[in-house]
Amino acid sequence: MTFDLARRLAAEALGTAFLLATVVGSGIMAETLAGGNVALALLGNTIPTGAILIVLIIMFGPISGAHFNPAVTLAFALKRQISLRDSGLYVIVQIIGGLLGVIAAHVMFDVTMIQESVKARTGPAQWFAEIVATFGLVSTILMTLRWRPDAVPYTVGLFITAAYWFTASTSFANPAVTIARSFTDSFSGIAPDHVPAFVVSQCIGAAIAVALAAWLLRPAREEGK
Amino acid sequence: MTFDLARRLAAEALGTAFLLATVVGSGIMAETLAGGNVALALLGNTIPTGAILIVLIIMFGPISGAHFNPAVTLAFALKRQISLRDSGLYVIVQIIGGLLGVIAAHVMFDVTMIQESVKARTGPAQWFAEIVATFGLVSTILMTLRWRPDAVPYTVGLFITAAYWFTASTSFANPAVTIARSFTDSFSGIAPDHVPAFVVSQCIGAAIAVALAAWLLRPAREEGK
Amino acid sequence: MTFDLARRLAAEALGTAFLLATVVGSGIMAETLAGGNVALALLGNTIPTGAILIVLIIMFGPISGAHFNPAVTLAFALKRQISLRDSGLYVIVQIIGGLLGVIAAHVMFDVTMIQESVKARTGPAQWFAEIVATFGLVSTILMTLRWRPDAVPYTVGLFITAAYWFTASTSFANPAVTIARSFTDSFSGIAPDHVPAFVVSQCIGAAIAVALAAWLLRPAREEGK
Amino acid sequence: MTFDLARRLAAEALGTAFLLATVVGSGIMAETLAGGNVALALLGNTIPTGAILIVLIIMFGPISGAHFNPAVTLAFALKRQISLRDSGLYVIVQIIGGLLGVIAAHVMFDVTMIQESVKARTGPAQWFAEIVATFGLVSTILMTLRWRPDAVPYTVGLFITAAYWFTASTSFANPAVTIARSFTDSFSGIAPDHVPAFVVSQCIGAAIAVALAAWLLRPAREEGK
Repeated sequence: MTFDLARRLAAEALGTAFLLATVVGSGIMAETLAGGNVALALLGNTIPTGAILIVLIIMFGPISGAHFNPAVTLAFALKRQISLRDSGLYVIVQIIGGLLGVIAAHVMFDVTMIQESVKARTGPAQWFAEIVATFGLVSTILMTLRWRPDAVPYTVGLFITAAYWFTASTSFANPAVTIARSFTDSFSGIAPDHVPAFVVSQCIGAAIAVALAAWLLRPAREEGK
Repeated sequence: MTFDLARRLAAEALGTAFLLATVVGSGIMAETLAGGNVALALLGNTIPTGAILIVLIIMFGPISGAHFNPAVTLAFALKRQISLRDSGLYVIVQIIGGLLGVIAAHVMFDVTMIQESVKARTGPAQWFAEIVATFGLVSTILMTLRWRPDAVPYTVGLFITAAYWFTASTSFANPAVTIARSFTDSFSGIAPDHVPAFVVSQCIGAAIAVALAAWLLRPAREEGK
Repeated sequence: MTFDLARRLAAEALGTAFLLATVVGSGIMAETLAGGNVALALLGNTIPTGAILIVLIIMFGPISGAHFNPAVTLAFALKRQISLRDSGLYVIVQIIGGLLGVIAAHVMFDVTMIQESVKARTGPAQWFAEIVATFGLVSTILMTLRWRPDAVPYTVGLFITAAYWFTASTSFANPAVTIARSFTDSFSGIAPDHVPAFVVSQCIGAAIAVALAAWLLRPAREEGK
Repeated sequence: MTFDLARRLAAEALGTAFLLATVVGSGIMAETLAGGNVALALLGNTIPTGAILIVLIIMFGPISGAHFNPAVTLAFALKRQISLRDSGLYVIVQIIGGLLGVIAAHVMFDVTMIQESVKARTGPAQWFAEIVATFGLVSTILMTLRWRPDAVPYTVGLFITAAYWFTASTSFANPAVTIARSFTDSFSGIAPDHVPAFVVSQCIGAAIAVALAAWLLRPAREEGK
């Protein structure tokens, strides 16, 4: 079944909006309630994010592919599974959807609708972390798609659940998410100045994942093993 | 397989009772044990609620559809998938079941059987949160039903797990739950005066979800894409 | 495939042993590390228990049915799906397995192998909680078995995850577990004097579940609905 | 589909690297944020580890079998399902991959790339715990493979989630993981002197599991039951 472009773009925008509302909203809720214990705040940020990803990919996957992430769209564009024009439109609506999600979270928690983060997230360690995180995320998607496409929602949700904790950056791994999170001055924010290096790192991670998966998943031939 | 009305209503009542016993009971347990750390209390409230929803929908789905929620019944009535008479009966037994669940939780924790909450949950931010939460819940159900009906128990449980944290209201998203929770003066309560605005918000959210899903899920036609 | 009795009994004993090693071991670990925060200790007790139940039922289900619980064996005996002789043997090895599991946990944590709990768990509220918990557990099993037998490991694990929190007793719901837990003077213990009333409550809950499921799951007939 | 040896070894190395990056990275993150509450730190270490195991086994299982663990490779060698030469190569790349994962975690958190742990993990109680943990892990794999091979990623992830808490050693259950964790002086470390006894215990546990599974899973024959 092929969906028309309008609905595919609506699905990307709506899914990315819900993703950001969850990341930012649960970050505000968790930080507010955690009484200064940051591990607990991060747990209250991680569990909802992993859970909503599973839900959103099941809901919107059959319509738009459920990218919600320019790095993922880039990966499929590199694999020539989405046209250049559609890729560009996907990225635009992902960014717009992400912003709307942040605004929705702010309205739900009764704070200023658009804010500017002052949270520093920068330096080579964090950039390397973003390369690893995005490489892992895109590899997860490409390899699960090959063996068990029905499990993609689960592996993506679980990968992000893990990556929140094993990367010093808490694993943004998504340029639309990174841009949107620069508009919230709360737990999950990132200072606008630090966005570009994150985005570049994420694109590098995605490109490496495409290259590696191409080799690992190439149809096997008989060898003298 | 079609079940007679008596058993469908029994399933709705029993499922809603277990849902409320879990929400209210785990709220009491978590608040009692958490030593004032509200994030921890909310975690001890979230995980049981998400888990029991998965269980209850698997158990009762084939009998009654496992609505446990007048907003969900409203959505199916708008889609003309349940008759008006049955809808009304569903809503009545959901409310009764919810009350019985609250009473059961109170008896298990040896507190007064019927209480009156004094917990304020009101204001435009919370009402908007309830619209978003119920819109998300009903969208989750309608879209998962379309692509992967077997996954509905999981997406509903996971959506509520996330929504507990990304909405300032902790996502009631259910008029029967809202009414029942006005009868407990514990962690999960809501002052009776604040119930009607929540219920109205929830019905609005459900209606928007039905309209959006009708457009998004309309059979696709070929387009010049 | 039918397994011989020796292996069915070995599966019941081994599974119950692992279940108790997990409940008691994670209780010791969680209480030791939680620094007096009981909600956190209960979380560290809940998550491992729910997880191991899913694993054990998948592992041993095809061999013995994976009861690990005299109340469950009672339910299947009432439904005449297991002979009286086999039921009796199941219960005996479940109790022995449970004790071995407690001993294993004690050895792993380097404490006295057999202890006597002094933890009071008694009174009508807790007995009612045990009736509700066991009723819920056995209903979960019987109804999931009817619609989606492959999901039984998941619904059982998730039900117990929830029931730890919504019952004041933390939901023993299992006579072999109850007996075994009287032999540990740690977080998960129960004073021996309080065991019999728990066991009686659990049998009552199981019997009610069998009766209710018989009505709810009776083959549907066409009715003028 | 049979993959050539180079890709099978790459899959083992990459998977073990990601596993260790997660164990060590989430350990650093969790300990840093937990403010001295070790139960919370362990929770922040457990959830990512269980999650990433599910992801990695789904991703790499069809290529290499997703052992990531010399004790698992030993089990399959005992069952003659992998040749001696391939077993040896698997173990070597698992150890190398594990080290690379630890280094990656250290780089992401901007600490010294290779460290030496001083964390004591020794004594008969912990050795017994490692026997139990590895016996449980290998039994989980062998028995799930028999009944529901598609569920292996889930049962392995859930078993380790539980075993983190029910064993005093937090369940290494993996010689490559044990060796790698001696190179980090953080939450998840183990002093190098204490590695050999852990590895021996793990191999014993694996061998017992192979023997038990051979008996339990032997094709059933009709018996006078």
